[in-house]
Amino acid sequence: MIIAEPLQKAIDELSKLPSIGSKTAQRLALHILKSDMQSVEALVKSIQELKEKIRFCNICFNISTEENCDVCKSNKRDRSILCVVEEASDVIAIEKTNEFNGVYHVLGGVLNPLANVTVESLKIKELVARLSNDEIKEIILALNPNSEGDATSLFIMKTLKDLPIKISRIARGLPIGGDLEFADSATIGRAFIGRITQQ
Amino acid sequence: MIIAEPLQKAIDELSKLPSIGSKTAQRLALHILKSDMQSVEALVKSIQELKEKIRFCNICFNISTEENCDVCKSNKRDRSILCVVEEASDVIAIEKTNEFNGVYHVLGGVLNPLANVTVESLKIKELVARLSNDEIKEIILALNPNSEGDATSLFIMKTLKDLPIKISRIARGLPIGGDLEFADSATIGRAFIGRITQQ
Repeated sequence: MIIAEPLQKAIDELSKLPSIGSKTAQRLALHILKSDMQSVEALVKSIQELKEKIRFCNICFNISTEENCDVCKSNKRDRSILCVVEEASDVIAIEKTNEFNGVYHVLGGVLNPLANVTVESLKIKELVARLSNDEIKEIILALNPNSEGDATSLFIMKTLKDLPIKISRIARGLPIGGDLEFADSATIGRAFIGRITQQ
Repeated sequence: MIIAEPLQKAIDELSKLPSIGSKTAQRLALHILKSDMQSVEALVKSIQELKEKIRFCNICFNISTEENCDVCKSNKRDRSILCVVEEASDVIAIEKTNEFNGVYHVLGGVLNPLANVTVESLKIKELVARLSNDEIKEIILALNPNSEGDATSLFIMKTLKDLPIKISRIARGLPIGGDLEFADSATIGRAFIGRITQQ
């Protein structure tokens, strides 16, 4: 027995978190052990309140403290344009850009049969139901540019193809500040395919 | 308001932990939000029990669930040889090697006037008191090989120089599996100074 049991238990629990390995977990646990009671209580309380107070918006499944999220409640948003994303963290990332003034729909993941994520586990049925509302005229698919994101985008496009709604996908290409020399060939290829003619 | 208040609070608290930046904290908070209540409760309980059940050994200041730690309680350890370390995590690291069978003394840090760590904030007084016990015949200083560790080692050696106790420091040199080509010159220099004559 090298490590005391409550310490080992805390290390085990912390290393279940994403991007925390057992070494980092040990470091965190020993940091918590050395911290004063007050700051540990603040940490514990913030985790508990996170679970207690946060729920998912009834309309778009974004995180919210009330029945509907701030975006869905706002009367400054353009309800004719809807952005489909994987996770609530994507809403935060897009909101930070100040480039989008429409509303969102959070799928809760992407299709991934190997991880047992099927059409039923995502909020695709709810998306189709929302579109029966004739306010929405355009959908932007903003899923991550990888194979699961692509498969999910294609599935949604196929599902919605008979509806009179414009569907677009966010551009793939070189990131701002990126370097042609170091970009992978798939990204460069996409940047050529998606080239925009200057007016 | 992009991020709901309880989420922002949890992100703030998590990013106070060492090696957790605001991006990682957001990722952790969103993970906790998506986790089931049971696993979040297990995490919270493990953190609370860590603070409640773990205390510091009365003898060596290692972490312990009882008055004295497992090393100090054990009758299989050689009480004539004492290893001085900075933190309890160093005891765990040394115990994992199975190379040391003596007892420990955890200083709780190293001398660092800029961070307000002085002789009084470390367990140096307690170390001197322990040495009045004539059982201890040798001290191994196993502080980290950096300037604060060196200064603290020198201070301890100076403090104990009149006592009839053998004092050594752990070797500095090339790490096992390391590469001369990529080692820094201070390490290579130390490896030359600390060379060992083969019998």
